[in-house]
Amino acid sequence: MKVRVFVYLKNGVLDPQGKAVEHALHSLGFEEASDVRISRVVDLHVKANDAAAAKEQGEKMARALLANEVIEDFHVEVSA
Amino acid sequence: MKVRVFVYLKNGVLDPQGKAVEHALHSLGFEEASDVRISRVVDLHVKANDAAAAKEQGEKMARALLANEVIEDFHVEVSA
Repeated sequence: MKVRVFVYLKNGVLDPQGKAVEHALHSLGFEEASDVRISRVVDLHVKANDAAAAKEQGEKMARALLANEVIEDFHVEVSA
Repeated sequence: MKVRVFVYLKNGVLDPQGKAVEHALHSLGFEEASDVRISRVVDLHVKANDAAAAKEQGEKMARALLANEVIEDFHVEVSA
């Protein structure tokens, strides 16, 4: 099953990469761009009997490695 | 309007970051994880009169800065 883990900074955590991209966009003439935030998506396959088991595996992987829960949140989506 | 730009490697392009994560997941006991691919999501706000205009702005930004179209594809989603 395909598992997609979105990993994004918690609200209130400064996103320096997003700020850099925002400045670059302004320099390129996209003055109207604001509130730029950059997140990660990890797509992977797991062997699981059903979507609930696949989602649980994805959540375990996110907690163990993919997300830094001090500053990041995540959510997991499963497709067949 | 909120614009979300997904930037992902084209099929066939090697993803060394994904490979590294896959190896790390195996080391942590998630032996069943495979085909790990890592992508970026850029969330931002733009001023636009309608969703079509916002999407067009997102696509222009993606082409100008956010995606490297030699090795990456992107798609843009708009929400109010």
